[in-house]
Amino acid sequence: MSDVTTTKRGRPGYDQRAILDIAVAAFNEYGYDATSMGVLAARLDLSKAAIYHHFSSKEELLALALNEALTGLEGVLLEEGALDGAAIDRLAYVLRGAVQVLTAKLPSVTLLLRVRGNSDVERQALTRRRAFDRAVSALVVQAREEGTIRADVDPRIVTRLVFGMVNSIAEWYRPEGPEDAAELADDVLKLALDGLRMPR
Amino acid sequence: MSDVTTTKRGRPGYDQRAILDIAVAAFNEYGYDATSMGVLAARLDLSKAAIYHHFSSKEELLALALNEALTGLEGVLLEEGALDGAAIDRLAYVLRGAVQVLTAKLPSVTLLLRVRGNSDVERQALTRRRAFDRAVSALVVQAREEGTIRADVDPRIVTRLVFGMVNSIAEWYRPEGPEDAAELADDVLKLALDGLRMPR
Repeated sequence: MSDVTTTKRGRPGYDQRAILDIAVAAFNEYGYDATSMGVLAARLDLSKAAIYHHFSSKEELLALALNEALTGLEGVLLEEGALDGAAIDRLAYVLRGAVQVLTAKLPSVTLLLRVRGNSDVERQALTRRRAFDRAVSALVVQAREEGTIRADVDPRIVTRLVFGMVNSIAEWYRPEGPEDAAELADDVLKLALDGLRMPR
Repeated sequence: MSDVTTTKRGRPGYDQRAILDIAVAAFNEYGYDATSMGVLAARLDLSKAAIYHHFSSKEELLALALNEALTGLEGVLLEEGALDGAAIDRLAYVLRGAVQVLTAKLPSVTLLLRVRGNSDVERQALTRRRAFDRAVSALVVQAREEGTIRADVDPRIVTRLVFGMVNSIAEWYRPEGPEDAAELADDVLKLALDGLRMPR
């Protein structure tokens, strides 16, 4: 999170991180295309030259934010809980990890979820996101082969629906809100693995 | 769907429906704010005056499309399957209906899902959408009271997660694609009500 505000008080000493945070917030609020370096400079009360001292271009800001979100998600796949054990437990681990990354890095994940592939940076991000989705889909396939999850839904559809549920959290979750991130991950797992229906 | 294309061939005889369809497609592709009446006129190969002959403003096009999506969703709540029977069956009926409306009226529902409340028309649409969500949430509460769905997840969170799943379908579903809309509704119900896990 940024440790400075955009209220005018002379020339605040922004570091790279603070500029990036404010840029990502602006991209999410106004859209990446609609946010010029001039708009960012005004929001930071800095000259454009001061931003260019830290970042070569607006696209570098976008690339850094998308990389942060993707590195977080990809990191989950490399943790022990995602690599060892029954596929259904690894799937549960990855889903929980994805909710944690989303809630902990909400601004950069929100930005990632809105990427449509309008530039090389966006297309590279989409390629990495699809690789993550494929890894999850492979876990679904494996759990199905191990007989632990139902075989009557296409694994690709399952992956899309479950991540539709996970990603939708970005639309309403607020770190300062009443929902606890760990409880939310529990809720996602209950719903995705066991469903709403009371066992009969 | 539109029965004319935007290829130039003199002055095509667009009716209201065709103009609305092309406008909604443009709003979804470029964003509502970024789509001016001039852009629409160029896309339709019509004069702006010809569009104004059918519609008083760009906002009227937006209002008509949002109303179409909302009327579809609200209509599900008024059908017999949503009104009679055990709450869990009514909930299942409404979820299936919501998937059907989404797939049948994909462009206008996609537009509805992107509304952020930037104008009176958008705020009115959000109010109606929230009323729909509340009605679904009330069904979750009732099913819980009837003992048919699990009591360890907050009904508001359940409603958000399940509709996160339903609404995410708009991001990838294509009417001409391989997924059958009725099967997709089945998949949503399996996942939401019974979960992925194989019964033990």
